Amino acid sequence: MMQELLESMLEEHRHWTKMGAVATYIPELSKQDSESLGICVYDLTGEVYHAGEWDKPFTMQSISKIVTFMCVLQDNTMDTLYKKITVAPSSDGFNSIVNLETKNEHRPLNPMINSGAIASIELVKGKNVEEKYERILQMIRFLADNPSIEVNQSVYLSEKETGDRNRALAYFMKSTGTIESDVEELLDAYFRLCSVEITCKDIASIAALLANDGKSLRDGRELMSKKICKTVKAVMTTCGLYDGSGEYAVSVGLPSKSGVGGGILAVSPHKMGIGVFGPALDAKGNSMAGVKLLESMAHRLELSIF
Amino acid sequence: MMQELLESMLEEHRHWTKMGAVATYIPELSKQDSESLGICVYDLTGEVYHAGEWDKPFTMQSISKIVTFMCVLQDNTMDTLYKKITVAPSSDGFNSIVNLETKNEHRPLNPMINSGAIASIELVKGKNVEEKYERILQMIRFLADNPSIEVNQSVYLSEKETGDRNRALAYFMKSTGTIESDVEELLDAYFRLCSVEITCKDIASIAALLANDGKSLRDGRELMSKKICKTVKAVMTTCGLYDGSGEYAVSVGLPSKSGVGGGILAVSPHKMGIGVFGPALDAKGNSMAGVKLLESMAHRLELSIF
Amino acid sequence: MMQELLESMLEEHRHWTKMGAVATYIPELSKQDSESLGICVYDLTGEVYHAGEWDKPFTMQSISKIVTFMCVLQDNTMDTLYKKITVAPSSDGFNSIVNLETKNEHRPLNPMINSGAIASIELVKGKNVEEKYERILQMIRFLADNPSIEVNQSVYLSEKETGDRNRALAYFMKSTGTIESDVEELLDAYFRLCSVEITCKDIASIAALLANDGKSLRDGRELMSKKICKTVKAVMTTCGLYDGSGEYAVSVGLPSKSGVGGGILAVSPHKMGIGVFGPALDAKGNSMAGVKLLESMAHRLELSIF
Amino acid sequence: MMQELLESMLEEHRHWTKMGAVATYIPELSKQDSESLGICVYDLTGEVYHAGEWDKPFTMQSISKIVTFMCVLQDNTMDTLYKKITVAPSSDGFNSIVNLETKNEHRPLNPMINSGAIASIELVKGKNVEEKYERILQMIRFLADNPSIEVNQSVYLSEKETGDRNRALAYFMKSTGTIESDVEELLDAYFRLCSVEITCKDIASIAALLANDGKSLRDGRELMSKKICKTVKAVMTTCGLYDGSGEYAVSVGLPSKSGVGGGILAVSPHKMGIGVFGPALDAKGNSMAGVKLLESMAHRLELSIF
Repeated sequence: MMQELLESMLEEHRHWTKMGAVATYIPELSKQDSESLGICVYDLTGEVYHAGEWDKPFTMQSISKIVTFMCVLQDNTMDTLYKKITVAPSSDGFNSIVNLETKNEHRPLNPMINSGAIASIELVKGKNVEEKYERILQMIRFLADNPSIEVNQSVYLSEKETGDRNRALAYFMKSTGTIESDVEELLDAYFRLCSVEITCKDIASIAALLANDGKSLRDGRELMSKKICKTVKAVMTTCGLYDGSGEYAVSVGLPSKSGVGGGILAVSPHKMGIGVFGPALDAKGNSMAGVKLLESMAHRLELSIF
Repeated sequence: MMQELLESMLEEHRHWTKMGAVATYIPELSKQDSESLGICVYDLTGEVYHAGEWDKPFTMQSISKIVTFMCVLQDNTMDTLYKKITVAPSSDGFNSIVNLETKNEHRPLNPMINSGAIASIELVKGKNVEEKYERILQMIRFLADNPSIEVNQSVYLSEKETGDRNRALAYFMKSTGTIESDVEELLDAYFRLCSVEITCKDIASIAALLANDGKSLRDGRELMSKKICKTVKAVMTTCGLYDGSGEYAVSVGLPSKSGVGGGILAVSPHKMGIGVFGPALDAKGNSMAGVKLLESMAHRLELSIF
Repeated sequence: MMQELLESMLEEHRHWTKMGAVATYIPELSKQDSESLGICVYDLTGEVYHAGEWDKPFTMQSISKIVTFMCVLQDNTMDTLYKKITVAPSSDGFNSIVNLETKNEHRPLNPMINSGAIASIELVKGKNVEEKYERILQMIRFLADNPSIEVNQSVYLSEKETGDRNRALAYFMKSTGTIESDVEELLDAYFRLCSVEITCKDIASIAALLANDGKSLRDGRELMSKKICKTVKAVMTTCGLYDGSGEYAVSVGLPSKSGVGGGILAVSPHKMGIGVFGPALDAKGNSMAGVKLLESMAHRLELSIF
Repeated sequence: MMQELLESMLEEHRHWTKMGAVATYIPELSKQDSESLGICVYDLTGEVYHAGEWDKPFTMQSISKIVTFMCVLQDNTMDTLYKKITVAPSSDGFNSIVNLETKNEHRPLNPMINSGAIASIELVKGKNVEEKYERILQMIRFLADNPSIEVNQSVYLSEKETGDRNRALAYFMKSTGTIESDVEELLDAYFRLCSVEITCKDIASIAALLANDGKSLRDGRELMSKKICKTVKAVMTTCGLYDGSGEYAVSVGLPSKSGVGGGILAVSPHKMGIGVFGPALDAKGNSMAGVKLLESMAHRLELSIF
């Protein structure tokens, strides 16, 4: 029944892909098929359902920010975190630099926007940036239960080549002491993490783990602490769709994280993990059809956390 | 057992009242006993528990904003609402004017900050401001199931006398066409709504109704639509504690609305409604001990929505 | 020869009146004939030259800010002034409110923008706002050597009725303690001063006095101290055409003050005082043809102070 | 007499050096002797006067911005310039990034702040950044009539090493298309220009040329067009001392450009060129004693342009 539901809902909302546009500021992303739409759902018994282009690979982009954040939470106390990054929602775009100069003592407002994610990498355990990067990549594979996950090299190179706005954010934070690492190394890790290639199934798997408060769907073993899972879901709810987070909380009501690659990872606590993919984006950088599909699904299955 | 729990937790956290300070910018509020602390809980069977100064009256202040917002949602479509006010979290203080000039097409970011609440009153049904005000006041009485709720006249006069920052917000919105009413009339309604005097029990009662998705605890009759209740809880979660909303979502994890009078209305969906009162505030204008008490309670009873 | 020059230059530049538009946010101003253009020049021997609609009355609007500022300078030390208002150029529009919240310790950046001019009135000597207003009005008459100068009542009423943005500025400053007077009284004085009706000849006369370092053209008597005249000319140069001041300094190079009524008062130190009038404004609120005419004249007569 | 005046005034104001502090954000600058104070004056007959540490070398820092700007004006029309950089005064600090995101269509407000100066280099004629840099360096030598002027290598390396804020500005402009060159190459040129080592005499010489409207003091030959000289002096007046420009126009009243190396180049049109050096800075980054000395001198010799 879930299977049929996903299939019918997906077709019902596919026309929304035509209302959005693929990201163009990263040239490689602009090559995506704008009409793609896929979904994958994991329920907490480990059952998987999917429809559309659910197994088409795409890059995580900002979805990687939540895995980085989970590593940060494992490796730091909240007090250590708050010295460098807060968890305040932002009403500016994901790549805004204004707040770094004018408020919050030069700390990024939250780890879900670019500045905060770049600064987050530094807070992950590791002797050097490379080790920090490796730890996060391994965590993605571990949480998605998919050891074959890799970086898409051409997207990575495209990000690196055109990542000047991110460079501005990073150098600004270097100048204020918010970060201390070599900027290009840190950005290189950031660009690679954005370019990690996954499918709807991979992110649904991570979402399911968050939905299950960190316990393995297979054997109930704790893979991530409950406290960290709750913190991540709270921050996803207030900051996960950038400056569209408030409207999304009203229309969908699920802790979620979007990426400009077109993916959205959505968590229905104690019920299911969801991954959607639709690269045509709305004005705020979130998957156009993906949001519509999740809205409809949350409504039909009464998933809102509120 | 709930009764004992409340009593012991309240005493355990009362020392936090000494870490905050009562609001002083409204002279009448500065007269409050800063060491007060009270709590009231309604479970969804209608059972009531309380501890401390649970029946000490205090003024709603910003807590009234959620009732105004419920009226707005009853009287408007989301599209009509979004033309005037969005539901985007703000990283600025509750009385900030900057965003009205620089972004969001002169619309207040959300109805939980002062500018948004003032503009909200205008969207409530009514031939004139007085009728709009009456509708909101009646709604407060109705939702709290307490017809004897009244405005505290001396607080109201104190607000009116010192409300120049709110005047600035309102006149700015008048100049951009965001509001059209007579500014002083609209502010008068706003000041009176802020000065509505309630107790922990009253706000716990409203919270319980939201927790029950709008259905009466007594007879299950729908007093407010489920959709409106979910919208209100979503907006409370992302914007309810001003620029402290993000950190509060992490530490407490309950849709809540605070007021500078010291009250916090917190909703545990499908479980209970909670009202706390502690007039000593933290730097962001939220009850110092109230937040600590709710954090501890959410943790002990596993109430977080995430 | 000056007479012929003025006449030919005026006709040469009249077509620029068609490129601008009369102010519409004050309804009375929108009734002006957009194709008017006039100029009057006083040389320092007291000789007067004029062309076009030089004797058509128009309202001073922001030009009154320099007379208010002269009174402020007579009645205060620079230190007293700087406690309330600075003399820093602004890169925002004349009615911007952002800076009052975010920088300069809630002080208006300079006395040539609306916030600064409103706050200036309070710093003028006088037992009450009415006396302060009277002092400034008398100063206008005295400096223009024209006792028959009066307020245009219909413009004043129009300003008062539509002055919500100015109300926002004033109430904001009241809330931060930048001003202490009754806001409506202070604004009433401000609106009346904006509505003072003058001609090109009147402002050329004031300009000539500034050009002559405060000494009467008739008898050399000091009507205003040299120091005040220099201060006023410095502030006119850096702030006199709002956020267009920088470009104007390059293209014209004369200490000047514009008003949305279409007037510009321009000072050529030790040479002449100039008044122009052309109510069709550019995007920054400055007379379109007026600026072009002054640019051409400054070039032809080598008047730039640089 | 001028000689005696300079000597007595310099000693009179030397105590102000103790009220400021040398720049510390560029480590090499912090090694300067904070009590140094020197002055040099060129009158338009070519006569030179000096006092104090007038021949002590120091780095140009932001004073180089005016020579870069002169090259820009030689190589571009105003229209070409305005497409990339405006000439609007800024009320933010010299290294502010906020305006690049929020206003002026991502153009730096003016060429006297860091962002504007970096963008200016690109507008100078040259096949590549190296040629542009060479053109500006040669222009410095040419205008100062001193072919032995060189870059201070240790300051340059110090700037390069600690220039992260400037990197943030440049990468931001790269991301918006305001600049197109390789960022590190452009910054390298910028850092070298900031590190050009000169004396009070060198900048007095450049100032004298500006005072003489571009004509050689020796033989009256036009070394720089009058129009460019006037434009530079206008922009120096409105923007030359960063956000302290307004107050400086009032207290001194001379087109000037300061640098965090402690130098100030001041122009008294048609009278003289002045160079001062005092590395102890005020809060806005301008020479503390230098400003006081110029204020006193402008007053004593009636030099104000207003």
